[in-house]
Amino acid sequence: MKRTISRLIQEKVLFLGQRKYTQAPVTLRQLHFCSALVYRQHGHPHDTVRIEEMALPALGKHSVRLKMLAAPVNPADINMLQGTYPILPMFPAVGGNEGVGEVVEVGSEVTALRPGDWAVPWDAGFGTWRTEAICEAGDLLRVPRNIPLLGAATIGVNPCTAYRMLHDFISLRPGMTVIQNGANSAVGQAVIQIAASLGVKTVNIIRDRPNRHKLENELKLMGADFVITEEELEGLTLDNIIQELPKPVLGLNCVGGRSGGLVLASLCDGGTLVTYGGMAKKTLQVPAKALIFKNITLQGFWLTQWKRNNHEADVRGLQAMVSSVCDLMKSGQLRPPECVQVPFHRYCQALQATVQSQRKKHVLLI
Amino acid sequence: MKRTISRLIQEKVLFLGQRKYTQAPVTLRQLHFCSALVYRQHGHPHDTVRIEEMALPALGKHSVRLKMLAAPVNPADINMLQGTYPILPMFPAVGGNEGVGEVVEVGSEVTALRPGDWAVPWDAGFGTWRTEAICEAGDLLRVPRNIPLLGAATIGVNPCTAYRMLHDFISLRPGMTVIQNGANSAVGQAVIQIAASLGVKTVNIIRDRPNRHKLENELKLMGADFVITEEELEGLTLDNIIQELPKPVLGLNCVGGRSGGLVLASLCDGGTLVTYGGMAKKTLQVPAKALIFKNITLQGFWLTQWKRNNHEADVRGLQAMVSSVCDLMKSGQLRPPECVQVPFHRYCQALQATVQSQRKKHVLLI
Repeated sequence: MKRTISRLIQEKVLFLGQRKYTQAPVTLRQLHFCSALVYRQHGHPHDTVRIEEMALPALGKHSVRLKMLAAPVNPADINMLQGTYPILPMFPAVGGNEGVGEVVEVGSEVTALRPGDWAVPWDAGFGTWRTEAICEAGDLLRVPRNIPLLGAATIGVNPCTAYRMLHDFISLRPGMTVIQNGANSAVGQAVIQIAASLGVKTVNIIRDRPNRHKLENELKLMGADFVITEEELEGLTLDNIIQELPKPVLGLNCVGGRSGGLVLASLCDGGTLVTYGGMAKKTLQVPAKALIFKNITLQGFWLTQWKRNNHEADVRGLQAMVSSVCDLMKSGQLRPPECVQVPFHRYCQALQATVQSQRKKHVLLI
Repeated sequence: MKRTISRLIQEKVLFLGQRKYTQAPVTLRQLHFCSALVYRQHGHPHDTVRIEEMALPALGKHSVRLKMLAAPVNPADINMLQGTYPILPMFPAVGGNEGVGEVVEVGSEVTALRPGDWAVPWDAGFGTWRTEAICEAGDLLRVPRNIPLLGAATIGVNPCTAYRMLHDFISLRPGMTVIQNGANSAVGQAVIQIAASLGVKTVNIIRDRPNRHKLENELKLMGADFVITEEELEGLTLDNIIQELPKPVLGLNCVGGRSGGLVLASLCDGGTLVTYGGMAKKTLQVPAKALIFKNITLQGFWLTQWKRNNHEADVRGLQAMVSSVCDLMKSGQLRPPECVQVPFHRYCQALQATVQSQRKKHVLLI
């Protein structure tokens, strides 16, 4: 222990990220400490994130002590660090929004979780890059222990985003077609697999690349029906490339710009385009005719907002979603994304790789 | 009569625009003739539209003979003539989609209409630029005779478009705000008046112009709460210009391009942008953030499609809409648009003015 409790409190590191819990009086002897990746200002992750030791609050009647097991570094975490994300933490903050932990102790009134359970935070802002946390039982959703650890660690954002987008906008029936760009992203891969499990066909747009056919085969092994490049789709309409499928009723767009326009132009009359990212950092161009005469609807999707709305209304919807996604993992219909596993103390490597937008997801093993 | 019946039939002018009605055998003596503005190919209206005499089919049990009284020349009619509209007639065709007529004779089974009633066609493609028509009673909606003739002639498209857009997308309550561009268009003016009748506030965007204040006053007399120019809104956000109103929940866009973007950017979180025109012939630019984090929905509206969908489902919805709009006209809450009245035989003048996008609507008096 390099720091005294009073210094920790003074520096606001004590009980960090756990401000809302009423603090029961604790003595030094009762305190649990954890290591956490902390930042105190926005900026480049390399300059701002430090590993620090911090004390945890006492376990309350409704709270849970969670030993973190694995937590990914996602692009949204980096945006939060940089201060460019729409929700930002108070400082000092612990990084990380997603991850899985094992319940090691529960308060006297907690019934939904037991020691030994695996659990994931349902909301963003948890601060998952830490060895341990005390939180309310209601902040967590239970996940089964018989799914892969890396699957559990990365279930909360990408697969759930894919799951919701395939369930909430169009009532999809087997044989219908969904088209998406950024098909090789983590969400894109989850879309392919969840759609396949529903009997829904997918047309998957990727950027042209040297190893295009290798990637195409990988996505087809996941269940993709068609994989085409933006360049192929640009010269022709989808009708000219693929006659085997009905026109897509749902388009998923995480790129924007020209690529988003290709998805839009491929939809059937009355179709819906859902935008959940803007990787190209270019606006989507929408011709009036697509809206008026093709009756296309454009909507956006942001899982964090969905979770918050639904947690308020009825938390069972969240648990049902996570359980459904876990079932797909258990049955092998949804595989965890390809991950690079990074020991917790080598976090700089994971941060840097994510800043550089390396394809594979980096997950901290804690 | 310059033409014989056989020639009329041969040239497909007989029963023009009335192909779907089973022809009862007629003799020359029984035939009614009418004059109509006919075109046989797409092109510039001046080159293609001719006044012709044509025979009408016999009155069937379910049909109605309608003496046309007044019919406007709308931009969509011109697009149809030019072949650029999404629904096009078979040739030879009678121009005009909107207008009011007086029922002069009804078939033995017709109960919804009586001689002396005023009626308007509910669907596009009627061919209203004619002196008389035989049609099914079900093709018409009754309008009361105690509204202005020019109001009745122009009720079918613009006021109904405004009415639907204010009723079908957001459940508007008094005090809520709607923002629109093209506020001086015929639909825009109807939006101002119908919104005012609902207690809904309007922010109305116009292009800057020399007589801007005169126009602003005219729109305010109709019930506009705020009138601002695109140029004013471009430098500032709506919040900076207008603090008195809640942020708009609904945006109506008939311009597209930059102007549509201004409407989009002015909406509240969760708001809806409805596009019903693209006068600027420029695509709408939609930032991903507006969809994802502001949860804006973009939709389109096309009255013709709405009418067809609803006619199939339940025609009472159409009659209810027309009756509601007529009630607003009767009470003076909705005034007919400023019209230039043109005698039927001087139709070239009305066509030319509409091609040149002159502000005032030209209406043929028949």
